[in-house]
Amino acid sequence: MKVLVTGAAGMLGRKFCKKLAETGIIAGRNVESLTRADVIESPAIADAPFKVRSVACDLSEPRVAEELISDRPDVIVHCAAVVSGEAEANFDKGYRINLTGTQYLFDAVRKAIYMPRLVFTSSIAVFGAPFPEVLGEEFFTTPLTSYGAQKAICELLLADYTRLGFFDAIGIRLPTICVRPGKPNKAASSFFSGIIREPLNGQEAVLPVPDTVRHWFASPRSAIGFLFRAAEIDGSLVGPRRNLSMPGLSATVGEMIESLGRCAGAERVKLIKRQPDPVIMRIVEGWARKLDASRALSLGFAAETSFDAIIRAYIEDEHLDI
Amino acid sequence: MKVLVTGAAGMLGRKFCKKLAETGIIAGRNVESLTRADVIESPAIADAPFKVRSVACDLSEPRVAEELISDRPDVIVHCAAVVSGEAEANFDKGYRINLTGTQYLFDAVRKAIYMPRLVFTSSIAVFGAPFPEVLGEEFFTTPLTSYGAQKAICELLLADYTRLGFFDAIGIRLPTICVRPGKPNKAASSFFSGIIREPLNGQEAVLPVPDTVRHWFASPRSAIGFLFRAAEIDGSLVGPRRNLSMPGLSATVGEMIESLGRCAGAERVKLIKRQPDPVIMRIVEGWARKLDASRALSLGFAAETSFDAIIRAYIEDEHLDI
Repeated sequence: MKVLVTGAAGMLGRKFCKKLAETGIIAGRNVESLTRADVIESPAIADAPFKVRSVACDLSEPRVAEELISDRPDVIVHCAAVVSGEAEANFDKGYRINLTGTQYLFDAVRKAIYMPRLVFTSSIAVFGAPFPEVLGEEFFTTPLTSYGAQKAICELLLADYTRLGFFDAIGIRLPTICVRPGKPNKAASSFFSGIIREPLNGQEAVLPVPDTVRHWFASPRSAIGFLFRAAEIDGSLVGPRRNLSMPGLSATVGEMIESLGRCAGAERVKLIKRQPDPVIMRIVEGWARKLDASRALSLGFAAETSFDAIIRAYIEDEHLDI
Repeated sequence: MKVLVTGAAGMLGRKFCKKLAETGIIAGRNVESLTRADVIESPAIADAPFKVRSVACDLSEPRVAEELISDRPDVIVHCAAVVSGEAEANFDKGYRINLTGTQYLFDAVRKAIYMPRLVFTSSIAVFGAPFPEVLGEEFFTTPLTSYGAQKAICELLLADYTRLGFFDAIGIRLPTICVRPGKPNKAASSFFSGIIREPLNGQEAVLPVPDTVRHWFASPRSAIGFLFRAAEIDGSLVGPRRNLSMPGLSATVGEMIESLGRCAGAERVKLIKRQPDPVIMRIVEGWARKLDASRALSLGFAAETSFDAIIRAYIEDEHLDI
């Protein structure tokens, strides 16, 4: 199997490539080669049992996508995107990277006339408030950010291109990924990871929203599991509605903090500093609190069922001594 | 008021411009000028009480949109589109005209930095089966044609651009327009008008689907009413969800034919020839049968409540002697 990962230097891209190097298998078959594309240099992979090519490139420039798929990858994992906060701050960049770049990739595959599995990382940002306590599988997409609009548009393109037989794609609507390793990013959701990650690393964290805020989460480990499952699943089981809300865990900030206390002790909880930020609060108010992910669950996608499990996954995967 | 109409030579565009010339008023104010754009020459308008400019142009070519809005029209009615059958038969043309052309128009307005009311004619083709008997206001858009995907994508852009204050737009999801005057077109829905129009004109009509097929209709007269209402409505009453399912009438083909008999006599009904067409049947099976249009109704949009009224509107508006 030849695999292409876009956004390979991003958090999910890196973890996906690392896991791929560990197992050497995708969709039940041996990986022959991996192409990693990102605007920045992708980090080295130690001891990959297959050929690795890294390309620093901008997918939103003409002809880049054609070059990336020139070896006709069997699986394309398309993670490349500008995050929500940046897409909101920079309208042109957001649409260029998140929409035009995706269109270029989709059209390059269409014109290459072959049938790869394409996995697209969409987001719960396709939904916008007001909505019911639990978002049903048939709830409409009325995003309240440009990022959400861009993801929703790509979902529509993905479904139409798949219907027309240009490729065989699955869009996976990721919950907010938590706990993200590393540094805060420009996503408005960044603090959700920060209030767990920074205390676990002995650092202070800023909480810009009230404890009552409820949101929808999955760990990076689960997200990587979604990508592998989406790469292997029989498309005929999915049917024409190719965009799936991924399973997750619905938790309040208060519940997250209690969980932190249980997993790592009350002292670490004291590192969380409450500094209300009305801009972030306004954005977060427009986000989903809980989704019905029955379809994805029945198709074999799985996520954590407690926030303790999410924190423990972070501690294990990042090799923390707690 | 300066008004721009794209697709001005199309059925809705022509009727809208004719009505505008009759009244000379839009959104409660006098019309100062009208720009009519279409790929073909727009038909002449007799005795318009305002300046009329006609431009034969392709909106999907760069810089055309900028030229069209150079006089900063207060109201833009964007009807230009390739119809469903043609968009399905010609992938490139469909996306170029229906998506790229709309993006060019939206971006031209965005860059002109002013705040027109933009009215976009969307379609019930944004919905795709399977769905419930009545489609709720929050039902998701999973189109089963490229035309539907293009309309759904433009709806998302429209909402995002409006949210960001680039313009003040309303998307109106038109029911299937029936009875369309003139000749059949390439829309897969064309026969719905044909089985009424041709018999009323003493000609044979082909019915490619069973009498039990149920669909969602409004007359051209109602559609023009929607456009005028959308041009004048207070945007703050609409809120952030800028795409509205227009009211219509749910009727079966059998009910339509009964209505034809009541309005024009049994002899005309005999002109309908049943010739099942599996391709058209397959497309039509994916279409909505009935919509909840409560939001639009509460915002003052109105349509026929009987198929007899739809047929009588056609007889009156086309000056038939029946």
